[in-house]
Amino acid sequence: MQIRDSIRTIPDFPKPGIQFRDVTTLFGDAQAFRMAIDNLLHPYAGARIDKVAALEARGFIMGGAIAHQLSVGFVPIRKAGKLPGPCMSESYSLEYGEATMELHEGAFKPGERVLLVDDLIATGGTCEAGIKLIRRAGAIVIGSAFIIDLPALGGRERIEALDVPVHILCEFEGD
Amino acid sequence: MQIRDSIRTIPDFPKPGIQFRDVTTLFGDAQAFRMAIDNLLHPYAGARIDKVAALEARGFIMGGAIAHQLSVGFVPIRKAGKLPGPCMSESYSLEYGEATMELHEGAFKPGERVLLVDDLIATGGTCEAGIKLIRRAGAIVIGSAFIIDLPALGGRERIEALDVPVHILCEFEGD
Repeated sequence: MQIRDSIRTIPDFPKPGIQFRDVTTLFGDAQAFRMAIDNLLHPYAGARIDKVAALEARGFIMGGAIAHQLSVGFVPIRKAGKLPGPCMSESYSLEYGEATMELHEGAFKPGERVLLVDDLIATGGTCEAGIKLIRRAGAIVIGSAFIIDLPALGGRERIEALDVPVHILCEFEGD
Repeated sequence: MQIRDSIRTIPDFPKPGIQFRDVTTLFGDAQAFRMAIDNLLHPYAGARIDKVAALEARGFIMGGAIAHQLSVGFVPIRKAGKLPGPCMSESYSLEYGEATMELHEGAFKPGERVLLVDDLIATGGTCEAGIKLIRRAGAIVIGSAFIIDLPALGGRERIEALDVPVHILCEFEGD
């Protein structure tokens, strides 16, 4: 499958023992990038989507493409301190310590239907923080879309337990 | 003009005295986002573009949209330490100190024609580093596209002096 084959694995990044799945080689391949964006949207053909939200920073590349294809607005969800205006914030646990994601106040209108996108789902912690932020803004997460799943880390189950459908293009087992 | 009017100004971000031009309000407005991406491409109708490169992180939102519209590959240019594979790096001066941008080795084939995009051009330092990286890879920067110019800071002239055409949608004076 061309989408999966276009993803490069970098050993020991960002630290020893981690096999980093690098989607930049997919983004750089015209055919793989086109197919990935199109395929991520196939479950939503005919659906009403008011806005696309994406998680910093690789998710922005996909989210910008998807929002443009749908002719809807794009909303960034960023690490703490990056967004310039008044924000809501949501912290989540990492292996060691915690991290915080932020969303601009007023980025969504209540009842707006939102598709959340990122390149990869691992434990699902960042995605869960994003869903909580969108819901606190009164908007509805109608689905989440990722290029890569690492099923050993359980992210899909975690997001589905929040009643958010998950659409993923390919999987990599831990190794 | 709708594109310019959709941009919010945040006073004193990221530090006192800076009037930050916040494009997230433009990205979140379906009509302004659609018009901005389409208008950035108007000068290139009929032109051959092989890849779109963008500067981290707001540039990724636009670059993803533009690459998808053109059905070409997308290449990220990031701050040092963010890209997982072997990189070329290029440093540039800031008001105090310097910063470094990186590009994956092999991201471009020699002779490829590249459009470089970012949300805003200020002094042009980051953009110049991006142009140098793309040229070191043997590719050709056929143009650069930005939503916002801060003309008081001279970025446009700096980039045009490198023989790269500059296309900008709107200007904000310092105040």
